[in-house]
Amino acid sequence: MAYPEAIQQLIREFDKMPGIGARTAERLAFHVLRVAPEEALQLALAIRDVRKNVRACSQCCTVTAADPCAICADPGRDRSTVLVVEQPNDVEAFEAAGFRGLYHVLGGVVNPVEGIEPDDLTIDRLKKRIAAAKIAEVILGMDPDFEGEGTALVVAQQLKALPVRISRLARGIPAGSAIEYSNAAVLAEAVAGRRPVEGRA
Amino acid sequence: MAYPEAIQQLIREFDKMPGIGARTAERLAFHVLRVAPEEALQLALAIRDVRKNVRACSQCCTVTAADPCAICADPGRDRSTVLVVEQPNDVEAFEAAGFRGLYHVLGGVVNPVEGIEPDDLTIDRLKKRIAAAKIAEVILGMDPDFEGEGTALVVAQQLKALPVRISRLARGIPAGSAIEYSNAAVLAEAVAGRRPVEGRA
Repeated sequence: MAYPEAIQQLIREFDKMPGIGARTAERLAFHVLRVAPEEALQLALAIRDVRKNVRACSQCCTVTAADPCAICADPGRDRSTVLVVEQPNDVEAFEAAGFRGLYHVLGGVVNPVEGIEPDDLTIDRLKKRIAAAKIAEVILGMDPDFEGEGTALVVAQQLKALPVRISRLARGIPAGSAIEYSNAAVLAEAVAGRRPVEGRA
Repeated sequence: MAYPEAIQQLIREFDKMPGIGARTAERLAFHVLRVAPEEALQLALAIRDVRKNVRACSQCCTVTAADPCAICADPGRDRSTVLVVEQPNDVEAFEAAGFRGLYHVLGGVVNPVEGIEPDDLTIDRLKKRIAAAKIAEVILGMDPDFEGEGTALVVAQQLKALPVRISRLARGIPAGSAIEYSNAAVLAEAVAGRRPVEGRA
């Protein structure tokens, strides 16, 4: 005896999602079976609606209901500075941190193992934006990990010929952390990137 | 700036699922946004279909496309023995182990912390089955954990007045394990439940 085909199908669909293994997919499928009919329907509708109502901003490529997105449409932004990030969630994080320039969302990182090549990212769109608008500086804001660093390198190279300053985020000890528990790579970068103290250097 | 409402809605829906936290819900929502439109649609349809095409067997309460389920409808089964389990997945496990009687799926375990009372389980249906059919033995097949043991106790008590034998699964060292790495509770139960060796007791 096997599960009814509709359950197997739903397990297969959940199993395709990132970070969801076979056991979790099964658990989720039985959850959908157990909840009130309205709740299951809401999930199905939410999946449909997100595809119908959300698009990529034609300027910065973040997710948005209206095109251009609220940030690209905001006249109060510093339009000369573009912060390049991996994902829409990174935009949220920098917004919360008070950044007031524009963004460009790459849509991922270069990762040959998973088949993600530079052409799969929105680097071409970024080059066209720089050519078309008065952008003075591009800040590379990828994650400080292996894929993020590699992607930053690729983006920097592809922008080399364009008349724009390229910078990257500062590296060092994160605010609020304890030196005692910081790892060696973090401390080494903090020492290597040390800055003069005002009036004492 | 916040995510478009459709994304927030989908994140909330995923967040309701068991074992899915806020971060995972966000990751899943962006996955739905990123995949091909057909794949997102397939997931939405699979959720709808599972609710439309799967029901509880009117006899054993397992999940099934046809009612009664294939096991309850099978004339080759030993209809005098009913193995009571927590979930439909447990039926799969005992089928693979070669059990040839009938099942009864409780639909969960008693868990006051999560608000699951005995009345939320299919114990009443089990009592009616025993009263209506020639069932000689009920085997309690719940998980050997805190909730499972408690639920077995509740079921045994509710069946006390009925003319049926009640048994539980054997406890001891699991086949294929190593005594060296077995935990103390397992070994204590294996010693306490020791059985005579044929012809030597």
